[in-house]
Amino acid sequence: MGSVRIYGPPFSTAVSRVLACLVEKEVEFQLVPINLAKAQHKSPDFIKLQPFGQVPAFQDDTTTLFESRAICRYICEKYSAMGNAELFGRGGPAERASIDQWLEAESQSFNPPSSALVFQLVFAPRMGLKQDPKAVRDGERRLGSVLDVYERRLGESRFLAGEEFTLADLSHLPNAHYLVNATERGELFTSRKNVGRWWEEISSRPSWKKVVEMHKEAPPTA
Amino acid sequence: MGSVRIYGPPFSTAVSRVLACLVEKEVEFQLVPINLAKAQHKSPDFIKLQPFGQVPAFQDDTTTLFESRAICRYICEKYSAMGNAELFGRGGPAERASIDQWLEAESQSFNPPSSALVFQLVFAPRMGLKQDPKAVRDGERRLGSVLDVYERRLGESRFLAGEEFTLADLSHLPNAHYLVNATERGELFTSRKNVGRWWEEISSRPSWKKVVEMHKEAPPTA
Repeated sequence: MGSVRIYGPPFSTAVSRVLACLVEKEVEFQLVPINLAKAQHKSPDFIKLQPFGQVPAFQDDTTTLFESRAICRYICEKYSAMGNAELFGRGGPAERASIDQWLEAESQSFNPPSSALVFQLVFAPRMGLKQDPKAVRDGERRLGSVLDVYERRLGESRFLAGEEFTLADLSHLPNAHYLVNATERGELFTSRKNVGRWWEEISSRPSWKKVVEMHKEAPPTA
Repeated sequence: MGSVRIYGPPFSTAVSRVLACLVEKEVEFQLVPINLAKAQHKSPDFIKLQPFGQVPAFQDDTTTLFESRAICRYICEKYSAMGNAELFGRGGPAERASIDQWLEAESQSFNPPSSALVFQLVFAPRMGLKQDPKAVRDGERRLGSVLDVYERRLGESRFLAGEEFTLADLSHLPNAHYLVNATERGELFTSRKNVGRWWEEISSRPSWKKVVEMHKEAPPTA
């Protein structure tokens, strides 16, 4: 198990997604620091691991992977019996498909506006970049529409894919964490009854609390 | 098998992605027309199938799904032995993960700029909307960078995930089809040696030709 390595800083939302999955699955891993401020993710050695020059990269023995959601799927398949064995479903194609569709909803509908807001409201100020007020307004409007759909869905089931916490819920944690805890836009989540209840439940999981602790140990300025 | 239904017009890139998968897997299906010009995708009945009001929606007996890439994964799992049995891999977690990571590269890196270009250069003129020259320039620049990574990758292997045509390649067909055949930006693909060879090979598959025929039978004005 000691052969699992993840490359990247914990404060990155994509790195955090994989960390949350590894902790939830109780898979031991080594975190290899990559300093984005020093452009280590654009170095020739890193490009060999991740051809787009983005974090995270991932290694497990001879398997090298990129793209956080693909890495999470791999961890759940490879270590299916470890830790939370429900994380990517246990049943047939229909159960897996329900998780997949909400994981895709995160990737296609939730992620674009929430990533834009996290960049504008959290990372741009830290990097000394000017905020783009139009991008903030567009992001808020688009994320609000997505969360209206989530509000209806989460009135029908405890979690997005059904009654169990799955990869679909987990994948929302990193962006939602920044929006609720590091901006004044947390109301997007907390003002919606079912979304607020869901956020409270998924963000209270010991696995996610452990990832948040890792943010503190390696802040963006490190 | 007659119980598989896909809702949406074939000219939609997301609908085409699912059609290509169904044809490749030789799964019989019924195509249910949805008229976007008449906003049928925003009707209460359609919202019950697809809560975001987007095409396609998909049904297979009692399973209702949305998100084209999740639907493709489901079709490959449910009908694993039918048609092209290699489409989503046959081996262990590492083979599946290689397909997943390039499917995610399509979704996260290739799709945003290529969808923006298809909208600006193909659909906006058809809808009588004004083109945004900055969105076109940004899309070209970003897609070019992504295709530079693909060019290196496709110098190492015949297809994106390895030596077999998979869901990862298939998922690129709809946007690439419009860019090569309905705009003057086809050079983005054809000027790159390996990408051009790959495009030629994947777009020549009988399954994709069948989907292109379906575009002609139900054009956007229908």
